[in-house]
Amino acid sequence: MKDVKIRFNNDYNRGAHPAILSALSETNGRAFAGYGEDGMCLAAAREIRRHIDRPDAQVHFLTGGTQTNFIVIAAALRPYQSVISPVSGHINVHETGAVENCGHKITALPAADGKIIAEQIEEEARAYRDSDIREHITEPKMVYISFPTEYGTIYSKAELEAIRKVCDEFGLYLFIDGARLGYGMGSGEADVTAADIARFADVFYFGGTKCGALFGEALVITAPELQKDFRSFMKQNGAMLAKGWLLGVQFYELFKGDGLYFEITRRADEMAERLAAAFGKKGIEPYIKSPTNQQFIVLTEEQAEKLSERYIFEFERKLPEGRICVRFCTSWSTDPEELCELISDIEKL
Amino acid sequence: MKDVKIRFNNDYNRGAHPAILSALSETNGRAFAGYGEDGMCLAAAREIRRHIDRPDAQVHFLTGGTQTNFIVIAAALRPYQSVISPVSGHINVHETGAVENCGHKITALPAADGKIIAEQIEEEARAYRDSDIREHITEPKMVYISFPTEYGTIYSKAELEAIRKVCDEFGLYLFIDGARLGYGMGSGEADVTAADIARFADVFYFGGTKCGALFGEALVITAPELQKDFRSFMKQNGAMLAKGWLLGVQFYELFKGDGLYFEITRRADEMAERLAAAFGKKGIEPYIKSPTNQQFIVLTEEQAEKLSERYIFEFERKLPEGRICVRFCTSWSTDPEELCELISDIEKL
Amino acid sequence: MKDVKIRFNNDYNRGAHPAILSALSETNGRAFAGYGEDGMCLAAAREIRRHIDRPDAQVHFLTGGTQTNFIVIAAALRPYQSVISPVSGHINVHETGAVENCGHKITALPAADGKIIAEQIEEEARAYRDSDIREHITEPKMVYISFPTEYGTIYSKAELEAIRKVCDEFGLYLFIDGARLGYGMGSGEADVTAADIARFADVFYFGGTKCGALFGEALVITAPELQKDFRSFMKQNGAMLAKGWLLGVQFYELFKGDGLYFEITRRADEMAERLAAAFGKKGIEPYIKSPTNQQFIVLTEEQAEKLSERYIFEFERKLPEGRICVRFCTSWSTDPEELCELISDIEKL
Amino acid sequence: MKDVKIRFNNDYNRGAHPAILSALSETNGRAFAGYGEDGMCLAAAREIRRHIDRPDAQVHFLTGGTQTNFIVIAAALRPYQSVISPVSGHINVHETGAVENCGHKITALPAADGKIIAEQIEEEARAYRDSDIREHITEPKMVYISFPTEYGTIYSKAELEAIRKVCDEFGLYLFIDGARLGYGMGSGEADVTAADIARFADVFYFGGTKCGALFGEALVITAPELQKDFRSFMKQNGAMLAKGWLLGVQFYELFKGDGLYFEITRRADEMAERLAAAFGKKGIEPYIKSPTNQQFIVLTEEQAEKLSERYIFEFERKLPEGRICVRFCTSWSTDPEELCELISDIEKL
Repeated sequence: MKDVKIRFNNDYNRGAHPAILSALSETNGRAFAGYGEDGMCLAAAREIRRHIDRPDAQVHFLTGGTQTNFIVIAAALRPYQSVISPVSGHINVHETGAVENCGHKITALPAADGKIIAEQIEEEARAYRDSDIREHITEPKMVYISFPTEYGTIYSKAELEAIRKVCDEFGLYLFIDGARLGYGMGSGEADVTAADIARFADVFYFGGTKCGALFGEALVITAPELQKDFRSFMKQNGAMLAKGWLLGVQFYELFKGDGLYFEITRRADEMAERLAAAFGKKGIEPYIKSPTNQQFIVLTEEQAEKLSERYIFEFERKLPEGRICVRFCTSWSTDPEELCELISDIEKL
Repeated sequence: MKDVKIRFNNDYNRGAHPAILSALSETNGRAFAGYGEDGMCLAAAREIRRHIDRPDAQVHFLTGGTQTNFIVIAAALRPYQSVISPVSGHINVHETGAVENCGHKITALPAADGKIIAEQIEEEARAYRDSDIREHITEPKMVYISFPTEYGTIYSKAELEAIRKVCDEFGLYLFIDGARLGYGMGSGEADVTAADIARFADVFYFGGTKCGALFGEALVITAPELQKDFRSFMKQNGAMLAKGWLLGVQFYELFKGDGLYFEITRRADEMAERLAAAFGKKGIEPYIKSPTNQQFIVLTEEQAEKLSERYIFEFERKLPEGRICVRFCTSWSTDPEELCELISDIEKL
Repeated sequence: MKDVKIRFNNDYNRGAHPAILSALSETNGRAFAGYGEDGMCLAAAREIRRHIDRPDAQVHFLTGGTQTNFIVIAAALRPYQSVISPVSGHINVHETGAVENCGHKITALPAADGKIIAEQIEEEARAYRDSDIREHITEPKMVYISFPTEYGTIYSKAELEAIRKVCDEFGLYLFIDGARLGYGMGSGEADVTAADIARFADVFYFGGTKCGALFGEALVITAPELQKDFRSFMKQNGAMLAKGWLLGVQFYELFKGDGLYFEITRRADEMAERLAAAFGKKGIEPYIKSPTNQQFIVLTEEQAEKLSERYIFEFERKLPEGRICVRFCTSWSTDPEELCELISDIEKL
Repeated sequence: MKDVKIRFNNDYNRGAHPAILSALSETNGRAFAGYGEDGMCLAAAREIRRHIDRPDAQVHFLTGGTQTNFIVIAAALRPYQSVISPVSGHINVHETGAVENCGHKITALPAADGKIIAEQIEEEARAYRDSDIREHITEPKMVYISFPTEYGTIYSKAELEAIRKVCDEFGLYLFIDGARLGYGMGSGEADVTAADIARFADVFYFGGTKCGALFGEALVITAPELQKDFRSFMKQNGAMLAKGWLLGVQFYELFKGDGLYFEITRRADEMAERLAAAFGKKGIEPYIKSPTNQQFIVLTEEQAEKLSERYIFEFERKLPEGRICVRFCTSWSTDPEELCELISDIEKL
């Protein structure tokens, strides 16, 4: 039976962290105002603003990543404007053309490890600025990056600062997709704080779906011009949950005090490190070295087959010489014992 | 404090029915496949198909009503086609132009009690068919109605049959918004079954958000041409929940066996009937007579003020002679004791 | 044979005014820069700015009315904003949902004679401003009216001033569709000048297609925020003619000196007046009294049949008691002799 | 003064071929039915169908290339479908995101000389067909190519046949942008006839704007499912000229008899060949070898400066070692004497 295998295929294969489930249970019988205009959403937003030290930030709660991505972009751009993204960006490859469906071109830039750099962005922005046929081309107006990226890699503070500088010079918005932001910040390699992210980005989110919540994303908007009437965009695109407090309850639980959000994702990163080390010890290399919870590993078909007897992981792509790239994810819900079993089975490869 | 007042303002002011909360708790630790491709969604779909006696129907789970409405319409229409709706239809007045945002005109028809009739639809369809400037006007291709309507009223079987007949004659899709379908079918006045709804409609949904679920809508597509690639539309519009089983678990709980869904909504309708009777006894008339859980009541300002001391209800509109129309909702979560208190306070008016 | 009948069906059934044809012939062999960046477009824009006394106005040349209408609206509105229009407005009834296709709802207001008044607009704008569920409804942000209207009627200076005042108070753009602006201003009843129109409107156009040009509309944008990157909207929507000078040549011819544009449309209005008088003398009433080149006349079927033996005119709608409403148009190309024949035949009815 | 220089910058810098201007002058005083429903459009369509030997083809007349491109794509695709294009395709680089503005992703494939090959298309189509996450990605449903390409290159019959075969296998539409189709077919290297193009493509157009017409494109639709209600798409997007006969008159003139269209473009190609030879004789190489009217030439800055004293040509891009790529176009309107002058000046370089 498929489901007795242990799932390392992604970071959204179990419900919610127990603390969140409890909070939902405890508030289940209470009556609330609708559409996010309740006390729990207010409280959650307050906690988030505290963590990023931005009392001026708007916080909105949405239900999923694709939804959040396209609504932010639709709200930020005029019809002739485009968004710059790494070619591997989630909006470019896994959202069924949601951004184009809103009318906007994605200018996809090469990104070997899932990251783009300030110079690439500058080149695009400058090409538009200097063009004498500007009305024939789209205006790049937003930069979309993920932290961590689709490959689990993260930007350094210096890299983000450089990107921010280009954005300032050319009037671009910086949007950081934080579907896995917890795992990014929990990484031992990360040299940015949540406040840094809020300072660099005009808009970003703390992903909940993959980081301990039952579901939901907490969107933070710092740029005043993006704040205007954002709830209208949410409603128009079906992203304003009638029972908005369900999201408030969850994010309050994740961000109150020191932030359960940061604790559980850091633990997942540590488990991923152990996993990577186990593969490394066997001479099994990563496809791209990742300091976060997603590990892209190069296996032989035999190795993959062997591991798939007991574990579910994600096939990524075929590689030369009969090898394949697969993804193992740890998460807030990874059971340390399950990890031990996996590591033990890796050692036996 | 606002929240010690008792909320009769809508039917989505509390979490989930206890059975659903239990089911979510019990499955919380299990690992599932993502994006609705799990066993619970399969099981829930199977139960729903059983209730409507349509083994050929597609069932999809989405998170909210506005989302479901605009995605269905976007998936059904070509750019030059329009949707016919009562002028009071939710898509026409309370969804921030979501349908237009997808590129489609809403042809809004007069609807005194929230309902439109077959003759009105036929007139529109015929006008297009007979036009000699068809390329200058939009083609009505879908009919959108709600069961029950925004005013709590319901269509009779004969009325639906007549609408279906026009749709067949003119090649129109019939889409029934069932955000409150349970309350519609639970009404003592309803002469249709769930199977009837499935037979009349090309696409409709069993609303969960307002009918006992924590959140979610179960969309049923019977027309084969609307089934094609519907999941692509869901994903593109941010409506494919990563943890899809959360919806499967809930709708399985609501539709297994005889259907908790139908039981709890019927009970709410009965409470609404008692509420209406209480107003009636005091000579307080409904704005529009409703056989379902929403009661639109005409109060004097004094009466409204008096009741608002202990209850929260929704202001609808000002009426002549200083009267106002307000809405009281019962729901699956209405506490019978709370209802008794309200009735007792009505009697004291 | 159909085409030996004399066409009074519309005002765009012949090519161009002879002076325009000559100008096109004379410049046919000259080589120009593309996309409207040529000397003729500059010269035409200068002449138009002179006529309206607005050196700050942007002037763009497009090829048709529907195209101009939807591009202006797409350029002005954000996705959750809507445009107010008379229910009979061209954008609402004869453009195949072009505005909705750009994502925007049209809020259509009752307009007995094709006109809406300031109070109606204010009511809509105020309802949004005062709403406590603003994010659930669209924001009216633009007012679309035609001068003259679809029924040939015109707004008085006082009416336009009142509308402008409401627009200023509520931050609405005023867009005047001037597909027949020449006929509006040529009317004996008109009490506004071209400069008045430019002062009241944020954006409007001098229609060429119906007023003597071979084709084309001269769009005037006075509101600075609507001027920004307007050429990008034109190009994106296929409205930037590669041989832009073709439009420049025509509008230069129409607007140089005293303005051929105004002369030929005034003459058409005078002919329409004679036509209306001829009907009046026979006791044949207008459907709606029009002071411009379109005359909506109520005929018996016998009268219509009789006239249709020699003339082509447009059927509008059936009226009670076997009567029908038809439209006769005069235009810049109406031959006075043809008019005399028609009048003579009317007298014989 | 700029305009005494001779323009070789593009193929749309002069009005119309004298025969077309005459035809427009002769019909200027005649009254026609509107919106392309006139005898001249019928006659022109008949001539075009004769040339391609496809009596079942629909022919529509539009005013420009960008307009034609986005409307065809909007009419062909559902919201989650995408169009495959060479990365250098006009829709991908010079139309201000018009295709994305209609909601569709462009899948841009590498194309060294402006052409893509069947294998590239097959790989994309197969990847979608074989994907197990199809609902997360767009479905490639149309292939867009240009004949000739942006670089003046042309597809061989064998290449087109191979592309057609892939399209048939995977259910893709083939759309051939023929803004310069005449120059493509007039090339000495072309081994396809107009009938071949019509047989390979589901939809294509004979560009008029760049090939002798005053303005306009003649769109040919052979695939029945793309023919349905196409005029509604035209009207909705502002592409249905009120005075449609203006296009009919022009295309009738271009396609009657043996086809002036083919004669004047062939002559331009021959002139381009002489031009290329002149550069070649001086050891000046093409950037990409083109057998049609556009010649992309690599000049030193000194050569460019020298030639720009008397001629206008288009700067394309900087190349290594201080060289630049420029474009010289011949066209239907190129004066042989002007060409002689240019060749003589090239010889003096």
